[in-house]
Amino acid sequence: MTVSPFDHPLLSGLLGDDEVTWHFSVEAEIAAMLTFERALAEAEAESGVIASDAAAAILSALASFRPDTAKLRAGVARDGVVVPELVRQIKAAVGEPHNAFVHFGATSQDVIDTALMLRLKPVVEHLGLLLTENIVRFASLEEQFGGRTLMAMTRMQPAIPIQVSDRVRAWQAPLQRHQQRLAEQSARLLVVQFGGAAGTLEKLGDKAGVVRAALAARLGLGDAPQWHSQRDALADFAGWLSLVTGSLGKFGQDIALMAQAGTDIALSGGGVSSAMPHKQNPVKAEALVALGRFNATQLAGMHQALVHEQERSGAAWTLEWLLLPQMVVATAAALRLAAELAGRIESLGH
Amino acid sequence: MTVSPFDHPLLSGLLGDDEVTWHFSVEAEIAAMLTFERALAEAEAESGVIASDAAAAILSALASFRPDTAKLRAGVARDGVVVPELVRQIKAAVGEPHNAFVHFGATSQDVIDTALMLRLKPVVEHLGLLLTENIVRFASLEEQFGGRTLMAMTRMQPAIPIQVSDRVRAWQAPLQRHQQRLAEQSARLLVVQFGGAAGTLEKLGDKAGVVRAALAARLGLGDAPQWHSQRDALADFAGWLSLVTGSLGKFGQDIALMAQAGTDIALSGGGVSSAMPHKQNPVKAEALVALGRFNATQLAGMHQALVHEQERSGAAWTLEWLLLPQMVVATAAALRLAAELAGRIESLGH
Amino acid sequence: MTVSPFDHPLLSGLLGDDEVTWHFSVEAEIAAMLTFERALAEAEAESGVIASDAAAAILSALASFRPDTAKLRAGVARDGVVVPELVRQIKAAVGEPHNAFVHFGATSQDVIDTALMLRLKPVVEHLGLLLTENIVRFASLEEQFGGRTLMAMTRMQPAIPIQVSDRVRAWQAPLQRHQQRLAEQSARLLVVQFGGAAGTLEKLGDKAGVVRAALAARLGLGDAPQWHSQRDALADFAGWLSLVTGSLGKFGQDIALMAQAGTDIALSGGGVSSAMPHKQNPVKAEALVALGRFNATQLAGMHQALVHEQERSGAAWTLEWLLLPQMVVATAAALRLAAELAGRIESLGH
Amino acid sequence: MTVSPFDHPLLSGLLGDDEVTWHFSVEAEIAAMLTFERALAEAEAESGVIASDAAAAILSALASFRPDTAKLRAGVARDGVVVPELVRQIKAAVGEPHNAFVHFGATSQDVIDTALMLRLKPVVEHLGLLLTENIVRFASLEEQFGGRTLMAMTRMQPAIPIQVSDRVRAWQAPLQRHQQRLAEQSARLLVVQFGGAAGTLEKLGDKAGVVRAALAARLGLGDAPQWHSQRDALADFAGWLSLVTGSLGKFGQDIALMAQAGTDIALSGGGVSSAMPHKQNPVKAEALVALGRFNATQLAGMHQALVHEQERSGAAWTLEWLLLPQMVVATAAALRLAAELAGRIESLGH
Repeated sequence: MTVSPFDHPLLSGLLGDDEVTWHFSVEAEIAAMLTFERALAEAEAESGVIASDAAAAILSALASFRPDTAKLRAGVARDGVVVPELVRQIKAAVGEPHNAFVHFGATSQDVIDTALMLRLKPVVEHLGLLLTENIVRFASLEEQFGGRTLMAMTRMQPAIPIQVSDRVRAWQAPLQRHQQRLAEQSARLLVVQFGGAAGTLEKLGDKAGVVRAALAARLGLGDAPQWHSQRDALADFAGWLSLVTGSLGKFGQDIALMAQAGTDIALSGGGVSSAMPHKQNPVKAEALVALGRFNATQLAGMHQALVHEQERSGAAWTLEWLLLPQMVVATAAALRLAAELAGRIESLGH
Repeated sequence: MTVSPFDHPLLSGLLGDDEVTWHFSVEAEIAAMLTFERALAEAEAESGVIASDAAAAILSALASFRPDTAKLRAGVARDGVVVPELVRQIKAAVGEPHNAFVHFGATSQDVIDTALMLRLKPVVEHLGLLLTENIVRFASLEEQFGGRTLMAMTRMQPAIPIQVSDRVRAWQAPLQRHQQRLAEQSARLLVVQFGGAAGTLEKLGDKAGVVRAALAARLGLGDAPQWHSQRDALADFAGWLSLVTGSLGKFGQDIALMAQAGTDIALSGGGVSSAMPHKQNPVKAEALVALGRFNATQLAGMHQALVHEQERSGAAWTLEWLLLPQMVVATAAALRLAAELAGRIESLGH
Repeated sequence: MTVSPFDHPLLSGLLGDDEVTWHFSVEAEIAAMLTFERALAEAEAESGVIASDAAAAILSALASFRPDTAKLRAGVARDGVVVPELVRQIKAAVGEPHNAFVHFGATSQDVIDTALMLRLKPVVEHLGLLLTENIVRFASLEEQFGGRTLMAMTRMQPAIPIQVSDRVRAWQAPLQRHQQRLAEQSARLLVVQFGGAAGTLEKLGDKAGVVRAALAARLGLGDAPQWHSQRDALADFAGWLSLVTGSLGKFGQDIALMAQAGTDIALSGGGVSSAMPHKQNPVKAEALVALGRFNATQLAGMHQALVHEQERSGAAWTLEWLLLPQMVVATAAALRLAAELAGRIESLGH
Repeated sequence: MTVSPFDHPLLSGLLGDDEVTWHFSVEAEIAAMLTFERALAEAEAESGVIASDAAAAILSALASFRPDTAKLRAGVARDGVVVPELVRQIKAAVGEPHNAFVHFGATSQDVIDTALMLRLKPVVEHLGLLLTENIVRFASLEEQFGGRTLMAMTRMQPAIPIQVSDRVRAWQAPLQRHQQRLAEQSARLLVVQFGGAAGTLEKLGDKAGVVRAALAARLGLGDAPQWHSQRDALADFAGWLSLVTGSLGKFGQDIALMAQAGTDIALSGGGVSSAMPHKQNPVKAEALVALGRFNATQLAGMHQALVHEQERSGAAWTLEWLLLPQMVVATAAALRLAAELAGRIESLGH
């Protein structure tokens, strides 16, 4: 059952990215949620909010916990989030008397948002590496072919001769700025969400700050005040994803246009046509354009979700779930495809 | 591995629709492609384009054909479409000498676009039924509560009293217009795509029109000139999908606002909170808003894909794949949720 | 002071359309509002809701009425709509005792939405004519060059030879479908909006239906129940606008690509470069792509505005004002540019 | 003639911002272009690329230069940009023999993009000040009412009591992060564009770098390699604009919901209804939601424009012109409205 090409057994061969996709699997998501609950119990025991016996019982139960996914599915259909049913199952596994201290002081959004951050952290690292790989590939193209000549095309008309390096640098320079942007925004993005029912951590009293800091530290995330109704870091990250795929879309469009003109570029490994065996279709280049336009489209929805009413908007939050994971995978796929495509350029210019 | 909530084992319980999702499974897609190849062989034999022996051999092979999906996946990664590798496998199954007549005169896009239409046909019927169900539900609400009083809210302020039927009709009337729109556009949408390498059916000579009409008839689709680079019917259908979810989003928003105000409506079966057991969250209402905003977002991308250059744009076509199936499922899910939500209204007005 | 290129003294030479733009001028808008108030007084007098003396006084005052625009501007800033202040000024012009019958039973949205429809009616006619002109231009291109040969380009690679008529028909056929779509949706679109404070025409009692029908007839619009919170006809029309510009964007993209390849097309009157006097830039073709992508972008917002809460959403309604007029002008400009561009094709194919 | 509400004599009273709008007037735009040509002549004379006599003649002519705007409009319609005709007029004003050194080594895009940056510089400063004003307003609200109680609303249902300061901080904290983001991206944004016909400054030989640095310094912009086909800084800035309006949209939505509930907030100066004199519509709050959704919509188009083919894309560049100025004005208007709205809060909480 696959509606999205990113999940599609066949199409994901072109449009997907296995590593990043894994982080959006149910397995990874549930694992991250259990990591949150474990770290929360530890942080709360450490600061004396719950007894260390309770924490030990929770950790012990979590070590062998296996969720009943049919009930989780029914829970989502009823509650809109998986957490109430998941917590119910964990509490059942912990049993009396310590079950009262499972998820203590937390709310669904704390679990879901922090579990997202736990997975975005390695994703951000992975995307950063892919970005570097592309920059290196472009450097290599410049080294190989940079001194050759190309006819510059302005407004789709021949302009004046330039060097291959002029065009390659127009592909590379934005990626370098994207690295800088990612460094700037990561610290704002990769932070814990912990606020309790309405953001005030009202059950933790004066231990709230200490527990949150300890929780963040255990999870390897930054510590920050709750941001459950402030979605700017996610929208900003979505913008970054779309900046990356837009820049790679330009690269793809340029390659497809050069391949059409026919003499400026030699590419290996194009796609086969079912009707015309002589053709070599620039499939990866086209996919880059498609992924760029896809992310540009999705970005509008992530910014609509900034209008997140009151202390928690089920509507705006659900909208993020429908958009962000696909944007992340599209970006990873585009970075992978661009590196592959750059690697298949056998000649550029004259 | 699930990136999209529509494919997600847990989230699809809220945001998915099993029946429509099935039509976007690989199994259904491949089955539709094989249906195309079968009907093509029959239509071509019928009109004397290929020998009846060849058609018989193709039908016989297709009857027991099972694709090698690992190779199909690799084929998509290389060719951008699954068809070249699928046709290669079918030809291998048919064997000499009839393999030359598999997929005769067709191209990848004929298979993919027509296979989409074969699946959209029952989908359109299903959505039409769901739409009718919602209209009936609203009629029932009007019958039950129509004569009661509500305070009209204009610009989010109390205005003057109205009847419950005034508000219910504002939910229902757009759905009736959507039925009319669907009837108008279905005939333009549900047509065969058959054009060959570049739309001219050049291999079929003067039999081209006869074969296309026979193919369409066998497939239960309308006959129409090739439309491989004319995507207006798909973009228009996407617009229809978003009109439906937008209208249901208004219904969801109204319900959530009434539930917030607290006295105008009584709902059964709200969602549970992990932190606040006393709450009854209007989860389905919020999901309707999210799905409406989701489809509105995607629609922009479907219209970007109208800029479909020359005789076939790999980029614009791939972009459709990334958008349309999810819009269809979002619409089915919204129609299902709206009917359920209407069924849970125990009281409206005063 | 011009923020939008459609209003820009210089850029509107390329991107604007004088005739359609005029309908979105303040003068045209106020004139349409006064037409509404006049027809309302007449319809209400005719059916005995107000005295004929009152109607005569209102008509007489409106005949020489000139609004104080500085006060209207302040009114919009305060009230979010121009109507309360405009009605105040009209009432002052009418004077005692008949001023109480100005705008009787109506609300701001009745005036604004109906005044929009009064202007969309000639706009729809104008767009229909421009569409026909383009269809004729393409027919003429087919007649002149249809039998010549072109190399079909699929996935931006040379495929097989086709005839020029094959490509020209791919530009023309969608426009013919757009004509059909416009005919279908016009009857749903061009209707009066008249509902009073909350849609119930509560001040008109059992005369409500008669007055609304008489008002519609006087205004040359269809009669229909109030639709103040049901925006599907507008969103559907926006979709139609974007279908048109998307189809023309494909035409523009094809022309720009042919002009780049250089031998398939001869165009007269390209744009001049400030740096390279030898160039002939395909400016109109590029503008068609830009306008197609512009409308595709805006369309998402028009569908977001379908989530129009309760009996009147100031937020969703204002969002329409920010989007729809520009979409209309973009469409008129694209139709004008496409016809001009088609007229500058001096040769197509070989 | 006004299609966009931002240019509209009446609607701009609500939705516009006079100061920022001025920077997008033709007068300001032409003035910035002339500033570019003046600084270019000076920088080129300074580094010996052109004679100081030539520079003196150019400066003298520019001092009294008045463009023929009718011809500029015709030039845009023909060339797609105003610069070729503007340069022709300047050259005519300079006369023989120095006219050959007007615009020397530059191209249209250098003038347009740099003239945009010259105006975005004060705009960025203005937006930063408005942002600070809003932060101060929220601080003042917190000081006045922070210790009072509110019922937190999660998923549009009453949750638990919080303090007014909890909600006010959720409005304020994103704005503080937006300040940080603006500081980070300004240095990448506010740079000169100078590349000549195809980005290589081929007419300046080994003086290219010196002239560009001198030009940037004279214009008060950062020096950077040409970025004519690298639009990431503009798309990123558009993202920032939409982050700001999205955050303010959340504030507006919260205010409208509080005003609907009726007891949590007291506001002065609401809008008047033409049908219901008793109402006080939260017009500014609704406008904030509309502007947030507007910018979110536009942002998708700015990211589509990242697919900027080859050395200059007329289509993608024109698309930016259709989107960015309106996003800037929408942001300024939203910041102004939010500050005004915050100033009208007479009471918050209990």
